[in-house]
Amino acid sequence: PISTTQPLYWKVSNPTLSPTHLQDLPGFTRSVYKRDHALITPESHVFSPLPDWSNTLGAYLISPAMGSHFVMYLAKMQGNSKSGLPPNHVERFIFVVQGMVILTNIHGNSHKLMVDSYAYLPQNLEHFLNCDESATLIVFEKRYEQLENHIPEQIVFEFRKLLPTSLPYDFNIHIMDFQPGEFLNVKEVHYNQHGLLLLEGQGVYRLGDSWYPVQAGDAIWMAPFVPQWYAALGKTRSRYLLYKDVNRNPL
Amino acid sequence: PISTTQPLYWKVSNPTLSPTHLQDLPGFTRSVYKRDHALITPESHVFSPLPDWSNTLGAYLISPAMGSHFVMYLAKMQGNSKSGLPPNHVERFIFVVQGMVILTNIHGNSHKLMVDSYAYLPQNLEHFLNCDESATLIVFEKRYEQLENHIPEQIVFEFRKLLPTSLPYDFNIHIMDFQPGEFLNVKEVHYNQHGLLLLEGQGVYRLGDSWYPVQAGDAIWMAPFVPQWYAALGKTRSRYLLYKDVNRNPL
Amino acid sequence: PISTTQPLYWKVSNPTLSPTHLQDLPGFTRSVYKRDHALITPESHVFSPLPDWSNTLGAYLISPAMGSHFVMYLAKMQGNSKSGLPPNHVERFIFVVQGMVILTNIHGNSHKLMVDSYAYLPQNLEHFLNCDESATLIVFEKRYEQLENHIPEQIVFEFRKLLPTSLPYDFNIHIMDFQPGEFLNVKEVHYNQHGLLLLEGQGVYRLGDSWYPVQAGDAIWMAPFVPQWYAALGKTRSRYLLYKDVNRNPL
Amino acid sequence: PISTTQPLYWKVSNPTLSPTHLQDLPGFTRSVYKRDHALITPESHVFSPLPDWSNTLGAYLISPAMGSHFVMYLAKMQGNSKSGLPPNHVERFIFVVQGMVILTNIHGNSHKLMVDSYAYLPQNLEHFLNCDESATLIVFEKRYEQLENHIPEQIVFEFRKLLPTSLPYDFNIHIMDFQPGEFLNVKEVHYNQHGLLLLEGQGVYRLGDSWYPVQAGDAIWMAPFVPQWYAALGKTRSRYLLYKDVNRNPL
Amino acid sequence: PISTTQPLYWKVSNPTLSPTHLQDLPGFTRSVYKRDHALITPESHVFSPLPDWSNTLGAYLISPAMGSHFVMYLAKMQGNSKSGLPPNHVERFIFVVQGMVILTNIHGNSHKLMVDSYAYLPQNLEHFLNCDESATLIVFEKRYEQLENHIPEQIVFEFRKLLPTSLPYDFNIHIMDFQPGEFLNVKEVHYNQHGLLLLEGQGVYRLGDSWYPVQAGDAIWMAPFVPQWYAALGKTRSRYLLYKDVNRNPL
Amino acid sequence: PISTTQPLYWKVSNPTLSPTHLQDLPGFTRSVYKRDHALITPESHVFSPLPDWSNTLGAYLISPAMGSHFVMYLAKMQGNSKSGLPPNHVERFIFVVQGMVILTNIHGNSHKLMVDSYAYLPQNLEHFLNCDESATLIVFEKRYEQLENHIPEQIVFEFRKLLPTSLPYDFNIHIMDFQPGEFLNVKEVHYNQHGLLLLEGQGVYRLGDSWYPVQAGDAIWMAPFVPQWYAALGKTRSRYLLYKDVNRNPL
Amino acid sequence: PISTTQPLYWKVSNPTLSPTHLQDLPGFTRSVYKRDHALITPESHVFSPLPDWSNTLGAYLISPAMGSHFVMYLAKMQGNSKSGLPPNHVERFIFVVQGMVILTNIHGNSHKLMVDSYAYLPQNLEHFLNCDESATLIVFEKRYEQLENHIPEQIVFEFRKLLPTSLPYDFNIHIMDFQPGEFLNVKEVHYNQHGLLLLEGQGVYRLGDSWYPVQAGDAIWMAPFVPQWYAALGKTRSRYLLYKDVNRNPL
Amino acid sequence: PISTTQPLYWKVSNPTLSPTHLQDLPGFTRSVYKRDHALITPESHVFSPLPDWSNTLGAYLISPAMGSHFVMYLAKMQGNSKSGLPPNHVERFIFVVQGMVILTNIHGNSHKLMVDSYAYLPQNLEHFLNCDESATLIVFEKRYEQLENHIPEQIVFEFRKLLPTSLPYDFNIHIMDFQPGEFLNVKEVHYNQHGLLLLEGQGVYRLGDSWYPVQAGDAIWMAPFVPQWYAALGKTRSRYLLYKDVNRNPL
Ligand SMILES: [Mn+2]
Ligand SMILES: [Mn+2]
Ligand SMILES: [Mn+2]
Ligand SMILES: [Mn+2]
Ligand SMILES: [Mn+2]
Ligand SMILES: [Mn+2]
Ligand SMILES: [Mn+2]
Ligand SMILES: [Mn+2]
Repeated sequence: PISTTQPLYWKVSNPTLSPTHLQDLPGFTRSVYKRDHALITPESHVFSPLPDWSNTLGAYLISPAMGSHFVMYLAKMQGNSKSGLPPNHVERFIFVVQGMVILTNIHGNSHKLMVDSYAYLPQNLEHFLNCDESATLIVFEKRYEQLENHIPEQIVFEFRKLLPTSLPYDFNIHIMDFQPGEFLNVKEVHYNQHGLLLLEGQGVYRLGDSWYPVQAGDAIWMAPFVPQWYAALGKTRSRYLLYKDVNRNPL
Repeated sequence: PISTTQPLYWKVSNPTLSPTHLQDLPGFTRSVYKRDHALITPESHVFSPLPDWSNTLGAYLISPAMGSHFVMYLAKMQGNSKSGLPPNHVERFIFVVQGMVILTNIHGNSHKLMVDSYAYLPQNLEHFLNCDESATLIVFEKRYEQLENHIPEQIVFEFRKLLPTSLPYDFNIHIMDFQPGEFLNVKEVHYNQHGLLLLEGQGVYRLGDSWYPVQAGDAIWMAPFVPQWYAALGKTRSRYLLYKDVNRNPL
Repeated sequence: PISTTQPLYWKVSNPTLSPTHLQDLPGFTRSVYKRDHALITPESHVFSPLPDWSNTLGAYLISPAMGSHFVMYLAKMQGNSKSGLPPNHVERFIFVVQGMVILTNIHGNSHKLMVDSYAYLPQNLEHFLNCDESATLIVFEKRYEQLENHIPEQIVFEFRKLLPTSLPYDFNIHIMDFQPGEFLNVKEVHYNQHGLLLLEGQGVYRLGDSWYPVQAGDAIWMAPFVPQWYAALGKTRSRYLLYKDVNRNPL
Repeated sequence: PISTTQPLYWKVSNPTLSPTHLQDLPGFTRSVYKRDHALITPESHVFSPLPDWSNTLGAYLISPAMGSHFVMYLAKMQGNSKSGLPPNHVERFIFVVQGMVILTNIHGNSHKLMVDSYAYLPQNLEHFLNCDESATLIVFEKRYEQLENHIPEQIVFEFRKLLPTSLPYDFNIHIMDFQPGEFLNVKEVHYNQHGLLLLEGQGVYRLGDSWYPVQAGDAIWMAPFVPQWYAALGKTRSRYLLYKDVNRNPL
Repeated sequence: PISTTQPLYWKVSNPTLSPTHLQDLPGFTRSVYKRDHALITPESHVFSPLPDWSNTLGAYLISPAMGSHFVMYLAKMQGNSKSGLPPNHVERFIFVVQGMVILTNIHGNSHKLMVDSYAYLPQNLEHFLNCDESATLIVFEKRYEQLENHIPEQIVFEFRKLLPTSLPYDFNIHIMDFQPGEFLNVKEVHYNQHGLLLLEGQGVYRLGDSWYPVQAGDAIWMAPFVPQWYAALGKTRSRYLLYKDVNRNPL
Repeated sequence: PISTTQPLYWKVSNPTLSPTHLQDLPGFTRSVYKRDHALITPESHVFSPLPDWSNTLGAYLISPAMGSHFVMYLAKMQGNSKSGLPPNHVERFIFVVQGMVILTNIHGNSHKLMVDSYAYLPQNLEHFLNCDESATLIVFEKRYEQLENHIPEQIVFEFRKLLPTSLPYDFNIHIMDFQPGEFLNVKEVHYNQHGLLLLEGQGVYRLGDSWYPVQAGDAIWMAPFVPQWYAALGKTRSRYLLYKDVNRNPL
Repeated sequence: PISTTQPLYWKVSNPTLSPTHLQDLPGFTRSVYKRDHALITPESHVFSPLPDWSNTLGAYLISPAMGSHFVMYLAKMQGNSKSGLPPNHVERFIFVVQGMVILTNIHGNSHKLMVDSYAYLPQNLEHFLNCDESATLIVFEKRYEQLENHIPEQIVFEFRKLLPTSLPYDFNIHIMDFQPGEFLNVKEVHYNQHGLLLLEGQGVYRLGDSWYPVQAGDAIWMAPFVPQWYAALGKTRSRYLLYKDVNRNPL
Repeated sequence: PISTTQPLYWKVSNPTLSPTHLQDLPGFTRSVYKRDHALITPESHVFSPLPDWSNTLGAYLISPAMGSHFVMYLAKMQGNSKSGLPPNHVERFIFVVQGMVILTNIHGNSHKLMVDSYAYLPQNLEHFLNCDESATLIVFEKRYEQLENHIPEQIVFEFRKLLPTSLPYDFNIHIMDFQPGEFLNVKEVHYNQHGLLLLEGQGVYRLGDSWYPVQAGDAIWMAPFVPQWYAALGKTRSRYLLYKDVNRNPL
């Protein structure tokens, strides 16, 4: 039985291919997982309850099983939700993509985090996030790599600003903006890993020999040494959030 | 400057990938053109005025430049439009996908053709189509291959019915229906060519070594001898219109 | 000398391609072993005596040498056969595919397990299986990953039922049923591993960029993050047994 | 609803993959059609009535639409069936694979053709085949390429013998036998085309860069210049029927 | 013996890869010739004297041996050079890329053509080009396809303007400009052929499944139906010259 | 039974891989036939009697069935052998690779041709070659493309010299020499076809995306527009014989 | 300067391709190293002095850097040579391919080992090999995997015999013989690793999707789970030496 | 706005493709990173301050994240720059590519190092480098693999000489010179790793199945067992610096 609300053969001239219409195009996905990179697009997200959080669904996009040394996941906090803590010696970085959360640490300090705000939580710092209505976060977690005499501190920014590049921090988060037509000058090959979420715009990402059209909502994992290059296209700027490990000897 | 009507980063959780939103995903298409088959999906349609028609836009999906011996095109008739004639010795088949047209032949006979109706016009038969409001047709044309003592006649059906399989006709049109889960038993390899338009439903088409998710609106060209197989999926029936040359010696 | 029981050239119109007729089609197999998945079909099974069992032949289909953190093997118990124990700290899951076995644990409790029955044996629990006539089991084994204050218990079900999803269990077993035409809505990409045995039916499995026709008796290994999707085809339901690791932090 | 005549999960230990069980393995075929060769296996045969024959089903395996200059087809003659004639100037070769037929030419000469018998019919020679019960033929047809002062004659052999290699004949038919372990010494590259039907045995065919396990019933098309090599395997001899164009200038 | 004008190992930090330094990178070229498109880059140009011209070197970039129905070539006119005529029934289009030429037709009319000027010469029109110093032209030639009652005329423009789109003309020439970040909305699939020379700027061309970085000086051949898409990148506009056949029935 | 003339396992330290030891390496060949080029190596040569010659075996390496407009073949003349004539309007070029032949034309002129000698025979010129002992020739033949007022003449050179480049000749033959380390400066892409026989030395040939190690005895076919490049390696010069069509309009 | 001992162009009709003529075919090798297997052919052997041996050259064909848990190497002992010991806890297996050696262990027992003889030396057993003239050995070494209450013993066989299959031994060595036409019935997929040296004969090895012609002297590495199959061809038997790990739990 | 300093369309006849003009050819790079080797070309270098050095930029070309057991990096020392120390137990090798540095060790010994000079610094030896103006170094570092009773010493050479091959050293550095046309005789397959920097000249490197044109400035990583071969081309010698691990048991 076919739908009666539309004229016969209506889909012929009105086809759809939206990631949120999962019943469309059986088996179709833009997601790719190769030896040295992955592209994970929305129709491949698998959400399930985050074990130590309440009322929160999570989708892990990057994890060490893929070759990375960090995890990157989406957390969808719902009404009256509360976060759990990462394992011991694990640092955490959160960035608010949608909605609003309250971050409270062990000293009772509270911060309201809106879209575009972010926070860095050093290893072993007790803290929790609350959400009254709904919020979507992108979270990075990594086992902290100690460096003698260097101690990272908690950082909370309600506006966009870069993480310090000083030695205590063993990774960095950049927010990269490209105007249409701009591209990376260097076709980079380096030992650092990347986790990336495209926040706005669209363009073409070259990874190794593969060229991918990408748009807001797409996530990318880049293994060490994969040749990489981005070009922004269209009429609006491209913006992405970029994780990169730094400040530790690569040997 | 980005749109202000939606919250920041709204596209991250509401991505789109519609063939009709051409500014999405730069350079992305599901269209494929290989040696022995082609898949032509809506975001690749190029419409331009049909030379001998009035007020009508056409998009050629299959033509001899591709290796076929026939053309298959979409004709979008607009208000007060009228068709032209095919070249001499060329037969024509039309099928109404959307809207309504009036078919009139040289003897003054007229037929009203609604969605699902079709007509066969033998070579050198003068005729024209009129459309008052709007209509979308799929049209097949082919240089007629004579057979002594056999003469095909004009056929008009307002309801779905098969073209005669008798010798005068050098091609045939089938409307194939599959319930979800049904598939072609034989993984066919044959000398006949096919032109196909998926009218309803979705599934997987195997052509040679390639497996394609397909949905209503997709068109396919199958060269002689390409291994071919279809399986219908989802909750609704699949229906496709299928051109096949027949009744002539393959040598 | 060719067989005289059939007419000359009889095989031309009666070809066979059965996995159990190993002398057919030299070198032909549907088995595939790629970086991120494997398909192991019956003509590739290598059975040999299971070291600590008596009168039992085993074929390992998945093991850590492939990248997994578990083993999956077929055990063919013959008359008067008895199982051995897994190594220390290794949990075990068995599912009866053919025949009947008696499971007895250290406390002297016995269960008769028919086809479709299964049992979970926690790490370090002494137990054994007996078979009088013949039985085929599919067995999963894994080094148990401790979680403070959580202890899994032995479970035996003579009818199909799901394993508890509670925290003590570090993997889960699903029996998935699909009616013809049904398919996975999400084209999943996730960090969890899978071991799969198709028990009934047939369909198409997409793994990364590869599309595999599959049928009852086929086994599949899915590494973390391989894009995955199944569609059931034909006239009967598809049923498969699915291992998935859960409830442990992916970092 | 699944079959009740077999125990549950019976197919797990009794899988089949027979070309004649078309409902097995959806979409699976060994047929391949590449630029310079094709392998056509039984699950891809499409039989339909042969236009000028009575009570006969035909499946074209090779035709000019594939690049060849000849056709090769299977003809399944049923009770009281009779052949038609090829077009003008077309020569014909038939070989009986199963059953028995009577060949009669315009002069009233009749021959009974059993399995392994064959006949060559020059262009424009009127003739017909009759079959009382059932017979399967493999038929080759080609537009005859004239050579001044050379005229080919009708040939009928009831036992296996080679076609004359003299100049009037513009193609040749070989029956090639290989004992297990034997192979073609030369890895041939030549301008001649081949049509091949494997009558007995099994082995490996290399065509270009592809290696194919083959068995009785498989048909092969080799375009000019495809590198080609066969090795026979197993415990019985391999035998194949081989078309090759000869005796005409390749320029 | 290595060069003494530069310090030892100077090339390590000053590598070059210029198409005009042919001794660099042995065997390296960006040129590609596939079934349905070609990219011809400057290090692959083979210039030789144009037979009917004087003092002129030509490099054919596209010709029917490639599958096209037209030729496209570069003509480097030197001091005191003069053009020859195309074969009978062949129309010609010239565009000045560098330098200056005088075009004179049979009626004695003369035009001075600077960079960016172009001329269309109908079939069988006698004419010649003179160059005093040096000039580089891009020339298109095609056997004219007659249309009853339609006659094309000579056209000369000293400034950029489009060729008429009226029926007499069986091809068209477009000059396409893209600002950085702009791209073709439709990922075109059509029966028309293209010849293209990139005059300014740089970007990415997708042809079928291949993505090519391109820059000024690159030429492209697009066969009918190859999926095609361009995106302009960098800080300056992209401009290309585009041949397209039009106005004739594709059957 | 294995050979007793060598110690056991002697082949382990004395493997061979000679094209003339056809029983070596089953199925192994370096011959390749792709869309736009072919490499034909000695283990793929198929010799058979040349129809109009006496006592001569021929192996066609290139013919129009491959896409060329000429043939190139090896002719092995034996004792008391005599050549036949090419078809009407076909010109011929011969080059002696081994042994000695006598060339006699219709006017009774005779030339003794040793290794390295060659002769050009215009279309329709009656002539014959005699060989007393043995000789190996490489022969090119092509249907002559007329040009008004231009007539090619017979040419015989007993020493190496180039064919005239004047307009009557519609192809040319070059003997190219490279010292070790030398390579083609231009990575050529052009509309002309090539037939090539490597006479001495070894090196690497790039054709399209493929890189081939080559040595004396290898033959190559290059279709129009295949990107092409050669580099000579080793301690001795490379020399090859090269056919190229010239002097005719490519449209 | 080219060699003067052979006639000009002599190599054209006498090409060679021998692994021991390293100056032939620049860059040509049949060696392949893929993710799940390797083929190492003689022209890729790199011999250098074995560190703890005297007067002995070794070529490592398989080592853990490749993914294996064992090494396999060729040892060429010369006059007055003596072996060194493997590292602690490493067991060793030797097989004589050419020549003769004397094996002496710590207890003063001596064995003369001719071609086809072999010896197993348990971990930490002091021993040495002497060679007076010359000998070629194939040597396997592996870190011994302890099993409680099981102790392997030294074994020396001067004639071909299988290693015991009892539990103390954590690997096994098979000598496999195939008559021409014979092949492995099962297309094996298993967790065990293999090291293989082809001692006699020739055939085709299928590894994953790749088909390799192989002959005596070729070595193969098979990673766990690579689909594997061999067919013997030609007129003589195939014999290979095969390492396989056994008797230890695969988890 | 396009540049006004050059005539219109100037780039068409003067294209560039220099690695140092990063704005050319968007997304173009010759860099490749595969499973078993990498080619890193200058347009992919990412320089950033070396953490423990002053005034020095470094680009890591090879690191363990790629599969190596060593690092190889370029260090660009600027005016008044000073090196840092490698981690404990890490040995270091430096080679001067451009400029001049002073090396001073803990005993106060100083060496002036010019282009072509190099030094080996054993693990845990305190030392530093000073540069007054500018210098480019290539640096190798590796965790030293101890060998009982063997101690490596510091080595400084101001002229080119090989590192000792004695047992204390667990890696070696070779400077390999090839005259044009020379190539590696053996197509090597071995367990040792390589890091390579091409200092002079150009040629073709074969790695596995890939053939790369290379020139001075290119760096290569070769994993264990990748088949490898180099041929030098052009008119000048090729010279490369080559790291290779030696003298340690591969098990
Ligand atoms: Mn980066
Ligand atoms: Mn069909
Ligand atoms: Mn899943
Ligand atoms: Mn053949
Ligand atoms: Mn277009
Ligand atoms: Mn050329
Ligand atoms: Mn095996
Ligand atoms: Mn090496």
